[in-house]
Formats: sequence, structure tokens, C-alpha cells
Amino acid sequence: MPDRSKPINTRDAILDATDRLLAREGYKRMTIDELAREVGIGKGSIYLHFTSKEEIALSHIDRIVERLKARLRQIADGPAPAGERLHKMLLERVLYRFDSVQHYTQSLDELLSRLRVQLLARRKRYFSEEARIFADVIAGGVESGEFAPTDPLAAASVLLEATNSLLPYSLSSAELGSRPEIESRVAGIASVLIKGLTS
Amino acid sequence: MPDRSKPINTRDAILDATDRLLAREGYKRMTIDELAREVGIGKGSIYLHFTSKEEIALSHIDRIVERLKARLRQIADGPAPAGERLHKMLLERVLYRFDSVQHYTQSLDELLSRLRVQLLARRKRYFSEEARIFADVIAGGVESGEFAPTDPLAAASVLLEATNSLLPYSLSSAELGSRPEIESRVAGIASVLIKGLTS
Repeated sequence: MPDRSKPINTRDAILDATDRLLAREGYKRMTIDELAREVGIGKGSIYLHFTSKEEIALSHIDRIVERLKARLRQIADGPAPAGERLHKMLLERVLYRFDSVQHYTQSLDELLSRLRVQLLARRKRYFSEEARIFADVIAGGVESGEFAPTDPLAAASVLLEATNSLLPYSLSSAELGSRPEIESRVAGIASVLIKGLTS
Repeated sequence: MPDRSKPINTRDAILDATDRLLAREGYKRMTIDELAREVGIGKGSIYLHFTSKEEIALSHIDRIVERLKARLRQIADGPAPAGERLHKMLLERVLYRFDSVQHYTQSLDELLSRLRVQLLARRKRYFSEEARIFADVIAGGVESGEFAPTDPLAAASVLLEATNSLLPYSLSSAELGSRPEIESRVAGIASVLIKGLTS
């Protein structure tokens, strides 16, 4: 579930309001004026933190990924066998993104197609940051003999690429389908992949 | 490589010209007038076969997938072990699409974002048709004992979904990268998946 705790500062409050407006109005109709009203600050205060609507939307997505990475790190550091942790992490990377945008019903397609080029550039960075967390778990699994010898970072990229097609970015809101359906599709891919890594 | 043989009829000739114009001008700038000139027929003849520019572009993509399916079927019917055939088929499903659109350099993003909604609907159909070809090979591999018992159609969906993120649809032309790079990424995913199916 997206973090619904109180915003810790103005920047956070702006991004929380962005999330609500994206859900309610969509990206195209969202204005800086409206955003300022939603936060309860002046328009000038928004521009102290962001230069454009585009930057705000992209920062909102950055924040989703930052929170996801914290959750992945938490699972990665847990006591379960490496295979089990990877399985949970693969579910988390898809379902956390799903939960973060599934209330956008109407407007996700519009947001994604308008920011497509910028998002593609960012995805590269997101994935390499995620891959490092997965690689740590794989390296541990190889060391303990749970996994067959493999290059941890290459294997991490395989896991990410093999589940990337289920991220909201690749699917329209209609295609996203129900959460249990997405969950079972990720679990199916994760099982085959993790069996494929196992020694 | 895309099929560069002579068109077998007017419909095929129109789609061949579409391919050239998409590469040269992009979807937005392509007009029915220009298309008719490129084929060497009257504009009215185009409308005997297609109702709109959108339908032409979508039919062009349909044709790519039809040709791909014929090639997959050919590999599926070959004599190699099931695992090897699946590996080749996974490479083919990604690289055939890559080869079919890689000469669009500039305009792929534009085409994909303009036809996004229609393409998403079609993708469902494409994938279920592809899945049936993969499922046949998996069923054979289970029967021969090469693969562990599994639901062939579910396993086929896993293979397709796990490689979907490398199809041109999900990647911009810049992100597509070089053919050898894509090939090695698909091969990496295919190896782990097929090891995961093996008994």
C-alpha cells in the first residue's frame, strides 16, 4: 500500500497532493494553481521546490520507487532462505507499484504516454538500483550453496527483466487487472526463475 | 529479418509501402495520398482494402505477428529437444519483432504512443496465439520427461510474460539497443526459465 502517513515537509505534502490530483483529475488537467490549493500553500511555494508540472509528476514517481527500494532492502535483510526472499521481493516490486497507482483508474495511460520518454530514461536508473538489492541476495544464495554459481548482478537483471512486463508502466489500467491476478502471474514467473537459479 | 519478398497482392503491397513510409516519415506524417503514390495505385484503391490510416498501421503490425507465428511454428515442429526449441523460439519472438521495426529509428515511439490503446487490446490476442505454440512444445517436453510436470499453457504464459519486457513495444528505439545486446538479454532470461522447467 502507498504510504499514507502524514507528509514530513512541504515537498512531501506537494507530492501527496499530486497523488490525489492524479487520481482525481489526471495529469493533463492537473494545474499548479490547483495543486497549490490542494496543499494549502501559495503557487510561489510550489515553485520553490519544483520547476514544472512535469518535474512534479516525475518526482512523485521517484518517491514511489524510493519507498519500494526501502521495502525491498527490508525483505533482502530478512532471515528466510535466499529463494524465498527473492520470491517475496519479486512480488513486492510488482505489487507495490500496482498499489501505488491502481487508484488512478482513468488517468494512468494518459500520464504514462505523456511522460513516456522521460520515464524510459528514469527506468534505467530505477532498475539498476533495484538490481543491486537483488544481487546481494543472490550473492548470499550462491555463497551458501542454495543457488548454482552465477554472476549475481546478471542474474538480478534476469529477474527484473522477466517481471518488468507486469509493472504498471507496461500495462494499461484496464490490462492491469485484479491484484490477485497480477499476484499469481508474478508468482508463476518467480517460481520458474528461482527454480532455474537453484543448485 | 522482415520478409522482403515481392508483395503477393494489393493489400500486401499497401502494407509493404506502409513499412517504408513508417521508416521514412513516421506515423504522424504518413498520409493516404502518399501511400497510394508509393504503391503506385489510386487513393480509392487503398480504401477498398482499409478504412483508415490507423487500420493500415495496425494491419501492418498484425502481419508482422502472423509471419512471426509461422516461424515459431516451424521451430516448434523441429527435431531438437524441447528445451532447445523453446530457447530458439524465445529468441525468435523478440528478435523477429526487433528486426521488423528497428529501421524505424525515429518514429517507433511516436507510432507506439499514438496507437497505444489499440495495440494493448491486440497484444492480448497476439500473446494467446503465441502461447498455444509454446504450450505444444512444453506439453511434448513434459510427455518425454524432459520437463517436470506442469500446466503447458500456464508455463507458456510464464515464458512469454518473462520476455515481454524486451519486445520493442516496451522499449523505446533508443532503449532497444543493439541486436547482440538484446539477444544476450533474452538468452539470459531463457536459460534461467528453461532450467526452471527442466525435470
